[in-house]
Amino acid sequence: MEQRVSLITLGVRDVARARRFYEQLGWRGQEVGETVFFQANGLAVVLWDRGRLAEDAGIDGDTGASVSGVALAHNVRSAEEVDAVVAGAAAAGATVTRSPRTTFYGGYAGCFRDLDGHVWEIAHNPGFPLDDAGHLTVPDLTDPGA
Amino acid sequence: MEQRVSLITLGVRDVARARRFYEQLGWRGQEVGETVFFQANGLAVVLWDRGRLAEDAGIDGDTGASVSGVALAHNVRSAEEVDAVVAGAAAAGATVTRSPRTTFYGGYAGCFRDLDGHVWEIAHNPGFPLDDAGHLTVPDLTDPGA
Repeated sequence: MEQRVSLITLGVRDVARARRFYEQLGWRGQEVGETVFFQANGLAVVLWDRGRLAEDAGIDGDTGASVSGVALAHNVRSAEEVDAVVAGAAAAGATVTRSPRTTFYGGYAGCFRDLDGHVWEIAHNPGFPLDDAGHLTVPDLTDPGA
Repeated sequence: MEQRVSLITLGVRDVARARRFYEQLGWRGQEVGETVFFQANGLAVVLWDRGRLAEDAGIDGDTGASVSGVALAHNVRSAEEVDAVVAGAAAAGATVTRSPRTTFYGGYAGCFRDLDGHVWEIAHNPGFPLDDAGHLTVPDLTDPGA
């Protein structure tokens, strides 16, 4: 697993309200499907409904005590690499909360929690390009042909 | 506030145990003062005692329900910029948990929580260089002359 973070997803109660907050700080994002993507320095900061974030990661019963409400994603270049990283994490003691599988966006991803419960998604997403240094670029998500 | 994340700090119960986990995944870090810094893609991933992380951010009574255990840092190029970003966040509805002040490492930083409680530290740290694109490089922390 390379030393990279591709996305930081903040679980929020109200995506529109959270977006307004970050936009008041001067950030500009793109909203797609009730999810807001902000291009940051080689990674994306994402706002998403907190309950959906927990559910998507395979975590039931988000009480606030069990889930931090933050998920880190590590994007890789192939489905095989997803399998390998998730298997390596499991071998190191992680809890796999969602075995790798095809995702609704045409990618392939699995999730695990580290020893302290921090959630990682390991994903291959052909729509979010990674450069040679591993920096991620959020594409134009408002382009219906993309 | 530029669209950048400089550090992601994961609050952990046992720093040595958490470090071993990430090293089993292939990551290599530097430990300084019971804190582990991993150089990632233009930012650092940091492991730190969860209670100290909450205390440092000005948050009392970390029950797990009140603090996510993850803090994001946004590093800037001057103390004045720290003041401006924290003031802007407060104006946008954030709760300032630690007013900007000089830090033990010779920098200047303040903390706020966004509308959902996510913790941000806004910091000027002369020891952690930022390039023109805002990418952060972890210096050689094992060099006693640094």
